Amino acid sequence: MTQVYFDHNATTKVDDAVLAAMLPYFREHYGNASSSHSLGLAARRAIDQAREQVAQAVGARPAQVIFTSGGSEANNLFIRGVADSLKPSALIVSAIEHPCVMRTAQALTRKNGEKWQLHYLSVDAAGQVNTDEATEMLVAEKPAMVSVMLANNETGVIQDVTSIAEAAKTQGTWMHTDAVQAFGKVPVNFDELGIHAMTLSAHKIYGPKGAAALIIDERLPLKPLIYGGGHEDGLRSGTENVPAIVGFGAACELAISRLTESMAHTVKLRDHLEHGLLAMGATVFGLDASRLPNTCYFALPDIEGDTLVVRLDKRGFAVASGAACSSAVPGKSHVLEAMNVPTILARCAVRASLGPDNTIEEVDAFLSAIRHIADELRKMSVLLNV
Amino acid sequence: MTQVYFDHNATTKVDDAVLAAMLPYFREHYGNASSSHSLGLAARRAIDQAREQVAQAVGARPAQVIFTSGGSEANNLFIRGVADSLKPSALIVSAIEHPCVMRTAQALTRKNGEKWQLHYLSVDAAGQVNTDEATEMLVAEKPAMVSVMLANNETGVIQDVTSIAEAAKTQGTWMHTDAVQAFGKVPVNFDELGIHAMTLSAHKIYGPKGAAALIIDERLPLKPLIYGGGHEDGLRSGTENVPAIVGFGAACELAISRLTESMAHTVKLRDHLEHGLLAMGATVFGLDASRLPNTCYFALPDIEGDTLVVRLDKRGFAVASGAACSSAVPGKSHVLEAMNVPTILARCAVRASLGPDNTIEEVDAFLSAIRHIADELRKMSVLLNV
Repeated sequence: MTQVYFDHNATTKVDDAVLAAMLPYFREHYGNASSSHSLGLAARRAIDQAREQVAQAVGARPAQVIFTSGGSEANNLFIRGVADSLKPSALIVSAIEHPCVMRTAQALTRKNGEKWQLHYLSVDAAGQVNTDEATEMLVAEKPAMVSVMLANNETGVIQDVTSIAEAAKTQGTWMHTDAVQAFGKVPVNFDELGIHAMTLSAHKIYGPKGAAALIIDERLPLKPLIYGGGHEDGLRSGTENVPAIVGFGAACELAISRLTESMAHTVKLRDHLEHGLLAMGATVFGLDASRLPNTCYFALPDIEGDTLVVRLDKRGFAVASGAACSSAVPGKSHVLEAMNVPTILARCAVRASLGPDNTIEEVDAFLSAIRHIADELRKMSVLLNV
Repeated sequence: MTQVYFDHNATTKVDDAVLAAMLPYFREHYGNASSSHSLGLAARRAIDQAREQVAQAVGARPAQVIFTSGGSEANNLFIRGVADSLKPSALIVSAIEHPCVMRTAQALTRKNGEKWQLHYLSVDAAGQVNTDEATEMLVAEKPAMVSVMLANNETGVIQDVTSIAEAAKTQGTWMHTDAVQAFGKVPVNFDELGIHAMTLSAHKIYGPKGAAALIIDERLPLKPLIYGGGHEDGLRSGTENVPAIVGFGAACELAISRLTESMAHTVKLRDHLEHGLLAMGATVFGLDASRLPNTCYFALPDIEGDTLVVRLDKRGFAVASGAACSSAVPGKSHVLEAMNVPTILARCAVRASLGPDNTIEEVDAFLSAIRHIADELRKMSVLLNV
């Protein structure tokens, strides 16, 4: 059984207060928010309140919030929704985007009829998008849209979205950022970023799975991904998942209220963890870049990531291997590939992502477990090589 | 406060046992089902079990179940997913489809580049699709796809999907049915219907909002609506909403276990209700058609539906007006329009949709409340006309 959870970038436990906020909406205020009777109106009010909570958490207005069922849907809504509104031209994404941005963009290049041209922004060895290259590419290609994530899910490296957004603005390009990993871990402000669309998700910030949002500049040309009854200002139809949306709102409030404390706490644990790992000869990816305070993406030479994850799990520690960080179908990490990490080292990648409830004792126990596992594996390896 | 809920076609209260099944997945087994540690594997097993429960409930195999966030998404997945797989040609939908089928089909006719041709199947005065017309249209147009709902959400009228599916098969047309309203109220068997795709939803069967499924014949050409990490066999990416999916599975089991009893109970209440309404001079839409046992869609001449809904709500009864049955943006009912109901009568439409927990006493109280409201309104009308 898992005792120590270091996989907060994959998902988080729903907070007690968040679940308490959600529960009445399953069996008491269970109405359809489109119904005009009291039960429906109670559901509608709850959604309105959550919309305010989400908007407030990122410095946006409630009318800018489009609720979706998840971050993947929100990212798809931006890319496919803008594409459906415009004549096919060019779009740009970074080489380290989550598959739900990457593959959605790639699908546009394989459409029936006219196709989109897709260009990739490369990253340096630390996992950072080069803003000069971004500016040059924006000027050269004048793309209809560009999507660069605020923080990478594997490395935690924070991108200079503001600079890219400035360059995008001069070219009339619609700029989106996937802020799913950044939100709740560092301050995120929609207006200050200077973007036109931003994705948030509840289940990464101690909210429930099943609620997320695309925050939009209302000038953004956008068609729905899901057509129907005209919910969410006509941009996302379907009966609203009221309990999940209520939980998302509550989770946003919680995230903002404890952000400073949580950043200070996790960065202290993370630095302690990395100090121990580096002493063991580990490589820490993105070490010199500006990163999320909670994320440590490392590799111990000659110890395969998948193996380490399984052995750590047996000792009660939940972490992720680089191969499985962002996909239901594990393969090699396209993020490490983009960073030019040698394949042999990339196969050793493991991500520990911390949360506000983790403790320094857990980090010490984790380091100790890794030392034991590394010794075991090296002994086995010596035996096998005899 | 609502004491009597007669709006089960809009949404249902989550059943106690269903909620109990869901709860451990918020705070104990909260892992991401794509994670390879114990918490992830527990989530994966829970999804596997729910997939079996859903498949079993409709006579399908687990591999045929694609989980989505809702019925609207599942219907969009069928229409857009098939359209993205094929060269544009023709498609057919009935004139009484839910907006999430109707507007998705209409959007295909407005695409950039090559466009789809959309044809509508009409219905008779009882709200039934004419199967002869369907066969003729399938032969004449040889459409790539056809979508006809199993039971209409407003009238409850059950369509002869099996006959239309047979005709579709002879033309090589991919046939879909939206079974969201039928499922849990009458027996639904995927294979017996002879279709290639079918939509189900959890929140209409005492499960949670946020989980639904498209059941598919695996030969169906289908592209994802949401691209990304490759979840759901590559057809629906995004972190699985584990608690909601678990609840959907539990709700399917519950629905099947009490189906016979629930049908007998609701039809008895519904007949009693309609007996009372007809005695008051009401029109019952689809009265002579084969209908869901729980649905009564009626109009009292000269009493506007919206007004009746509000006044019934004040007396503690939750029902829906025809104008608001299927859309977040109320307008006139396209279903009654397709049935050639005069506008003046259509504006009086109200839907009462019953559930297994309703009682005969509630129906009597409802009839009594309607009598009082009708008297009040007619008195007011007399005063206003003086």
